Amino acid sequence: MLRTHTCGELRLEDLDKKVILSGWVQRVRNKGGLAWVDLRDRYGVTQLIFEEGAVAPELLKTATTLGREYVVQAEGVVIERASKNDKIPTGSIEIRVSELKILNKAKVPPFIIEDETDGGEELRMKYRYLDLRRNVVREKLQLRHRMMQETRKYMDGQDFMEVETPVLIKSTPEGARDFVVPSRVHGGEFYALPQSPQTFKQLLMVSGFDRYFQIVKCFRDEDLRADRQPEFTQIDCEMSFVDQEDILEIFEGLVRHLFTKVKGMELGEIERMTYEDAMRLYGNDKPDIRFGMPFVELNDLAQGKGFSIFDSAELILGINAEGAANYTRKQLDALTNWVKRPQIGAKGLVYVKCNEDGSFKSSVDKFYSQEDLKAWAEKAGAKKGDLILVLSGSEKDTRKQMSELRLKMGDELGLRDKSVYRPLWVLDFPLLEWDEETARYHAMHHPFTSPKKEDMELLDKDPGKVRANAYDLVINGVEIGGGSIRIHDKETQQMMFRHLGFTEEEAQSQFGFLMEAFEFGAPPHGGIAFGFDRLCAIFGGTDSIRDYIAFPKNNAGRDVMINSPSSISDEQLVELSLDIKLKE
Amino acid sequence: MLRTHTCGELRLEDLDKKVILSGWVQRVRNKGGLAWVDLRDRYGVTQLIFEEGAVAPELLKTATTLGREYVVQAEGVVIERASKNDKIPTGSIEIRVSELKILNKAKVPPFIIEDETDGGEELRMKYRYLDLRRNVVREKLQLRHRMMQETRKYMDGQDFMEVETPVLIKSTPEGARDFVVPSRVHGGEFYALPQSPQTFKQLLMVSGFDRYFQIVKCFRDEDLRADRQPEFTQIDCEMSFVDQEDILEIFEGLVRHLFTKVKGMELGEIERMTYEDAMRLYGNDKPDIRFGMPFVELNDLAQGKGFSIFDSAELILGINAEGAANYTRKQLDALTNWVKRPQIGAKGLVYVKCNEDGSFKSSVDKFYSQEDLKAWAEKAGAKKGDLILVLSGSEKDTRKQMSELRLKMGDELGLRDKSVYRPLWVLDFPLLEWDEETARYHAMHHPFTSPKKEDMELLDKDPGKVRANAYDLVINGVEIGGGSIRIHDKETQQMMFRHLGFTEEEAQSQFGFLMEAFEFGAPPHGGIAFGFDRLCAIFGGTDSIRDYIAFPKNNAGRDVMINSPSSISDEQLVELSLDIKLKE
Repeated sequence: MLRTHTCGELRLEDLDKKVILSGWVQRVRNKGGLAWVDLRDRYGVTQLIFEEGAVAPELLKTATTLGREYVVQAEGVVIERASKNDKIPTGSIEIRVSELKILNKAKVPPFIIEDETDGGEELRMKYRYLDLRRNVVREKLQLRHRMMQETRKYMDGQDFMEVETPVLIKSTPEGARDFVVPSRVHGGEFYALPQSPQTFKQLLMVSGFDRYFQIVKCFRDEDLRADRQPEFTQIDCEMSFVDQEDILEIFEGLVRHLFTKVKGMELGEIERMTYEDAMRLYGNDKPDIRFGMPFVELNDLAQGKGFSIFDSAELILGINAEGAANYTRKQLDALTNWVKRPQIGAKGLVYVKCNEDGSFKSSVDKFYSQEDLKAWAEKAGAKKGDLILVLSGSEKDTRKQMSELRLKMGDELGLRDKSVYRPLWVLDFPLLEWDEETARYHAMHHPFTSPKKEDMELLDKDPGKVRANAYDLVINGVEIGGGSIRIHDKETQQMMFRHLGFTEEEAQSQFGFLMEAFEFGAPPHGGIAFGFDRLCAIFGGTDSIRDYIAFPKNNAGRDVMINSPSSISDEQLVELSLDIKLKE
Repeated sequence: MLRTHTCGELRLEDLDKKVILSGWVQRVRNKGGLAWVDLRDRYGVTQLIFEEGAVAPELLKTATTLGREYVVQAEGVVIERASKNDKIPTGSIEIRVSELKILNKAKVPPFIIEDETDGGEELRMKYRYLDLRRNVVREKLQLRHRMMQETRKYMDGQDFMEVETPVLIKSTPEGARDFVVPSRVHGGEFYALPQSPQTFKQLLMVSGFDRYFQIVKCFRDEDLRADRQPEFTQIDCEMSFVDQEDILEIFEGLVRHLFTKVKGMELGEIERMTYEDAMRLYGNDKPDIRFGMPFVELNDLAQGKGFSIFDSAELILGINAEGAANYTRKQLDALTNWVKRPQIGAKGLVYVKCNEDGSFKSSVDKFYSQEDLKAWAEKAGAKKGDLILVLSGSEKDTRKQMSELRLKMGDELGLRDKSVYRPLWVLDFPLLEWDEETARYHAMHHPFTSPKKEDMELLDKDPGKVRANAYDLVINGVEIGGGSIRIHDKETQQMMFRHLGFTEEEAQSQFGFLMEAFEFGAPPHGGIAFGFDRLCAIFGGTDSIRDYIAFPKNNAGRDVMINSPSSISDEQLVELSLDIKLKE
């Protein structure tokens, strides 16, 4: 090795050792015949010292002229530092250098390589390899590494077999848009990249693999958003001979294991909530339960008192912001403007302050007596000093708007502490959801999810009411995993495709192999998949999944570092039997 | 769970326990009021017993009518078996069943699901999920799972960080043909699937990640052969601040770890050989060293004696097949025909039998005296009872042919025992190889491999003579890994591209980002990649990598199970700005 030690490991115990270190020049200082160089590698920083008299004059000169990010190899002796730095583990020692070799020079980097940088996002994306040199960025990928290793340890310990499923598969119209790969050998035909290994993992259950997992890249050609990438990583799992409870237990175990091993935290009980309750109480199928502030319906108390906005509303919802009665006029105006923004879309905001003297002050005092407001407060569980916020309108919009307002108030009141983790299982999702655009039902989870036995009779009468054996794991308001007990017989699967508007021929051509497999002895089975990028981001305490991906693409799906996508040669196009035909 | 135990875990200690098992019906037998069912899952087989009188008559009837591969759940009590079966771990007990539930029926499978099957390859590929039910097939994937877990344990223990590199990258003309992925958002542009994460792992070294690994899917759109798949898996590794010796050591460690943990074998010393010696002694850059039989050059002894074939040959090579003097006329004729097959292409085969009485019998007795032949035998190290085989012709062809013949003789003489493992490092590969077709040099490894310092001066004078800091790991004649110390400065990299016939513009547009990265402080680094599918096959003792892939493609690159590749819709083509233009 071009080193005897890393830049992170020498301590006072190593005094007088002759060592060789290699790394990057973080910083050079010199003063009165002395020069110091902070040498950095992945493992830490160690100070090199060059003393006039003690070293050859050329060496001192070389040291003082080293540029930032030069790669050097230094040989010397470990000595005790005069002024110790207790902020870094190596801060008690330094290396008195006797030999120094420049292994590679460096141009001045386009942005500062420190925890705080002056580089804008596009610049840091273009020079991602330099951004990755910053400790705060590399540590995120180290966290990801740890999460991967610990996930595998747990899964292996639970007898799950890691099986790689193919990347070159078949395009199906179900779900999001596929990325496709033209076949050269079979001109005019295409492979598709998997959106998930769903059908393959189900086939592995038919194969009797019993417990399968994989940490696997998946692909979706969707229009990108801040937290979406065209390629993303999933922890993908499937088990046989289980019911929902078994799956929840095994994967609570995984989440617990990760918190213990990676964050040193013991999770308490993981709460559970039905989809129905989540929507009723929080207007959201992934509620953040780090704080309460549940919705209360005020229709019965607030209608018929002459306030026409409420009287004509389908739904009137209140939340109680504890201790927020001290919100100023200005703060309340800001909140009102906030809910009226197009992204939220509320018409207005009603508030009720529960004053310390027991009286109430509201924005609708004209219509409601103190008695009326007291009844609201009682229903909302509001006490002196609390602030009730009320939205109204159509049922669907109001729940959505109130969910946003609740999260906003959680933020404003400091109830969404990133160091607190409150996982939640959301259960009993609907099987189908109505899609206005195509005027048909879509599978809420995917077409392989089984309906609850007790709801089967509703499937023809009232399909939207049928609940599925489907579950999501939510942490702090972020969905990090979801799964279901699957259909495992051909008849139910065919019926499901029928309800989703597939013709028999379509179902057969796209999923015939799966339905045929079900005829050869398919066991009851179910599974789950976790969004691994997002899981890492949650563990790391940040919102952007992109930070946890070594080489992410930008919002236009472009890798600006290698400049991809790019054009290919005419020969390649001919070989692939393709012509480019740009849209107008 | 739909079971209390698996079908592989009950023993005599469990007598009288009330248990529930779930699994597949392997076999049903019945005789005089008794029925037995072998119930199978991933973990083993357990016998169920149904006794007339002891169970309800319907139950006995159900049991006798169960079809093969039905999925059933059986409840009952563990009892001791009257006639024990010591071939299976559960063979001392059986389950006296009190309740039986058919979880799913099964059609008669298209082939027998036992270790020995009657299914042909295409049929088993189409119903791969049924083939995977066979123990012998599933065990191969269990081995693969174990190999993955142990590889990660070792690498993690050596401070390597697992980093996922992108799958959607950029097409480059270097190397094999890329699979490409049309971009919808950037019409007319394409991503490419990686042939390896080479440039990304080098960038991670520039980022200071120090030690990187990944078990990663790679893609090559090449014409397929029996042991090639369009998608394959690599253990991909890179390290900074190392020289070749460090890499050999770390990865000998990996191979040792895998042999110990997965096969319970301790490997001895791993031998090393230069490329030059490998070619000279075995005509092969991946020699099988489970046996000797090195080449000896006989030009000096065999030329000038009137045998025109030898006299006009560039090279005359012999090998000594120990103990094979008893080969019959028929066997020798068969060998001669074998070397004359077009795949081998030799013109003929000369043999010399070293008889037990000290005399020699050869196919060229007309031209060579006993003294002549004795000299050959001495040079070849042949003793009484041995057989010398001689080929001649051009240097290149003869080495290649003799390499094949040597392996063939190794097989015939039983010297290639699959339970014996002899790994070998082949070192000092040439940097470049001349390509007749394009009349230019190609990188033997890849264009990022560094030349040996001491050979640098040859680069302009005699490029074919320059040796690289490149190494392959070979086990039993199979190349399972290869790597190199990389170039880490822009100038050398540019020079290398020049030697490979890149214009400056081509080098810049394809690898500009890498050369720019080298300017910002790139550390000396090197790495290696192992063919994971092949490594698993070697460990499993079989030749076909396809057996170690859960869902492989056939020789035409087709997945016959899901029927892929396939056509996509016209809407998809329009969205992707593509037209299909089939070749004539």
